[in-house]
Amino acid sequence: MTAVQDVVSTIRTLRREVAELHTELTRNRLVVWTAGNVSARVPGRDLLVIKPSGVPYDGLTEDLMVVTDLEGGLVDGEHLPSSDTAAHAYVYRHLPEVGGVVHTHSTYACAWAALGRPVPCVLTMMADEFGGDIPIGPFARIGDDSIGRGIVETLRDSRSRAVIMQNHGPFTVGRDAREAVKAAVMCEDVARTTYLAMQLGDPIRIPDDDIHALFDRYQNVYGQH
Amino acid sequence: MTAVQDVVSTIRTLRREVAELHTELTRNRLVVWTAGNVSARVPGRDLLVIKPSGVPYDGLTEDLMVVTDLEGGLVDGEHLPSSDTAAHAYVYRHLPEVGGVVHTHSTYACAWAALGRPVPCVLTMMADEFGGDIPIGPFARIGDDSIGRGIVETLRDSRSRAVIMQNHGPFTVGRDAREAVKAAVMCEDVARTTYLAMQLGDPIRIPDDDIHALFDRYQNVYGQH
Amino acid sequence: MTAVQDVVSTIRTLRREVAELHTELTRNRLVVWTAGNVSARVPGRDLLVIKPSGVPYDGLTEDLMVVTDLEGGLVDGEHLPSSDTAAHAYVYRHLPEVGGVVHTHSTYACAWAALGRPVPCVLTMMADEFGGDIPIGPFARIGDDSIGRGIVETLRDSRSRAVIMQNHGPFTVGRDAREAVKAAVMCEDVARTTYLAMQLGDPIRIPDDDIHALFDRYQNVYGQH
Amino acid sequence: MTAVQDVVSTIRTLRREVAELHTELTRNRLVVWTAGNVSARVPGRDLLVIKPSGVPYDGLTEDLMVVTDLEGGLVDGEHLPSSDTAAHAYVYRHLPEVGGVVHTHSTYACAWAALGRPVPCVLTMMADEFGGDIPIGPFARIGDDSIGRGIVETLRDSRSRAVIMQNHGPFTVGRDAREAVKAAVMCEDVARTTYLAMQLGDPIRIPDDDIHALFDRYQNVYGQH
Repeated sequence: MTAVQDVVSTIRTLRREVAELHTELTRNRLVVWTAGNVSARVPGRDLLVIKPSGVPYDGLTEDLMVVTDLEGGLVDGEHLPSSDTAAHAYVYRHLPEVGGVVHTHSTYACAWAALGRPVPCVLTMMADEFGGDIPIGPFARIGDDSIGRGIVETLRDSRSRAVIMQNHGPFTVGRDAREAVKAAVMCEDVARTTYLAMQLGDPIRIPDDDIHALFDRYQNVYGQH
Repeated sequence: MTAVQDVVSTIRTLRREVAELHTELTRNRLVVWTAGNVSARVPGRDLLVIKPSGVPYDGLTEDLMVVTDLEGGLVDGEHLPSSDTAAHAYVYRHLPEVGGVVHTHSTYACAWAALGRPVPCVLTMMADEFGGDIPIGPFARIGDDSIGRGIVETLRDSRSRAVIMQNHGPFTVGRDAREAVKAAVMCEDVARTTYLAMQLGDPIRIPDDDIHALFDRYQNVYGQH
Repeated sequence: MTAVQDVVSTIRTLRREVAELHTELTRNRLVVWTAGNVSARVPGRDLLVIKPSGVPYDGLTEDLMVVTDLEGGLVDGEHLPSSDTAAHAYVYRHLPEVGGVVHTHSTYACAWAALGRPVPCVLTMMADEFGGDIPIGPFARIGDDSIGRGIVETLRDSRSRAVIMQNHGPFTVGRDAREAVKAAVMCEDVARTTYLAMQLGDPIRIPDDDIHALFDRYQNVYGQH
Repeated sequence: MTAVQDVVSTIRTLRREVAELHTELTRNRLVVWTAGNVSARVPGRDLLVIKPSGVPYDGLTEDLMVVTDLEGGLVDGEHLPSSDTAAHAYVYRHLPEVGGVVHTHSTYACAWAALGRPVPCVLTMMADEFGGDIPIGPFARIGDDSIGRGIVETLRDSRSRAVIMQNHGPFTVGRDAREAVKAAVMCEDVARTTYLAMQLGDPIRIPDDDIHALFDRYQNVYGQH
């Protein structure tokens, strides 16, 4: 198989994976209407696969997915790419270890976004997945590089796979798109539980050395190998 | 095709669309039992298509939809029109750019209704969709023009597609019924997130010039063209 | 058809209706596991049809329904009647206009139950359906007539179709079982919205004369005739 | 049938039951992604059946279930056992009357976990099922016996079938796996209702002698016999 056939085949697979992963966003109630998107990097190419703009989640088939370059320029697809493509592309340009990006407006993460406060690490599940607090990124207008820059600068100072952009909502990353979707699901889950605990009293912080031990075990031991 | 055949065909299409859009109300959990309704204006005619009164959402087929004039008088249909028809009709009479109206008793919008307080604009999604706060309309008894008048007077002073009537619930409008349904979904979503943020602290308001920039971009650029 | 055939046919119909109405309890998320039940009076007979005790909602077919007399004694059925049968039977004995009773442990109604506070009338939907506040009934142990007595004494002083028993949960009544189920759905809905409004501030009470006008219109005009 | 055939048949049945019971966890929204698990003791053998580690709930067939000894060592299965197996095994070793164990990260129970406060008994449903408050277990790192020890020491001092481990989440037990799943469902339900009541005011505690009477009746009389 030639290198060209190879990338064609890879893109076909990624189109299907990215399309299917959007069902996890609706199933986990992370999105309403069309407001959320998943993308995947095409490994070894300056390309990404992403949801089209303004299209409902029902019937979001692989054919509708859009391929762009890492500046967000349309490469392949019959629809316009998501209006958040510039942010996704910026992340791939500046964080080479990232293979998947997810953006949602999930409810509790957005409540933290409106407050501009990081989610404190008071649950072992949060230590496992995020290795500490979920940080807040800066306020940024939509449409230029300022969102992407805010994501990258915030994640560089953190072990977290999630950043909550102020007044906006969460962006999550992973080694692939599935891992980024998992981080989006877990981000909303811990944003909700932590929010609820803070409403009733003062949640107990997990000591830093326990957070480190939990994170290390989960990232290196958990799951099937 | 004659003009008469034309309007018959248009009404048939609108009956189907209005019937189908009610499934978005249940899917997005905006309504319980029979308490919510969608209508559409028949373009170029003093007619509207609306849900029948007191009929469950299951099996709400196009045949059950009701056609009335813009005073709410029955024109075609085997059931009585929704008890909210007078309010819908008033909106169509006084706001010629409106092609669709939706009324629900969605939970968080109704909590704001009971408080009589506008929903503050602390989320980019809210700036995008509503261009600022979601305003509160006056308290009004059901059954005469006072609800319709309250909706129209409130929306005229606002860019918002949603108004929350005090002690009652949200009404939303759009260029067509689908856009009004989208506004109803987004209204509940931002009413919930904003509510949650206010429970935990002081959400950060988005500066007015950023709201204007977000609203302008979203209304003019977003989606497929 | 003989009178005996007639009552056999009526009971068969009621078994099916009561069985089917339990799906509304799960669909509206009013119950978990087996903790909730619907009953119907057999018109003109000192009999009722009710859910069996401790049976899951899946596969709750008409054959499993139980017929008892109005003291709760088993008349027909292969299972024991619901452990709440004594309370249902007491209501039918003392409120002859009641044809259906529903009991749930729905979340927000139970939060009010734990507080022992009536739900204040701050929504037009609540004025429509309940004609004012939803009252609180006394604390009562399960197993004798004290629950039934608490329900009846509380409802006699109210226009409400719902009473929330302290530390326990809501009971609702109707002219038939379907109306009682509707009241259970609406009770939870307004218990939730009112709760949420009270968390954020002071909800605006609807003036008494407006409550009366709304209740009168809704009970006498709304729906299909 | 030989004793060996007998245990093979029992394990096959338990694999199916344990696999199916995981659908109750998702149906009742007690878990997200892969974060929750059910196990069952193999009666009369030092063996247990448990969910594999890191496998999604969809398509969690009986073939994927794992059999371990009561030290958590793999006995049969093609996947690694749940990373919580050590805690389950510890419970079976030290509480011989326990035949099923469930662990979730259900939302409201986890909010109490973050606060480190027991859930107070303010609902008759809670007196019925748990016989009093739901206790809090100590903070413990994941990976050794400290979680199992915390569960056992806490449950020994209580009639409750649920313990909420601080900063972590609930573990529940039962005479079989189904009873432990029911306890997990009820634990989240009362954790939520009690939480909501405490947000709005001071819930009324049920007097101790009423708790005892309710618990005794429910454990000995309720359900089909």
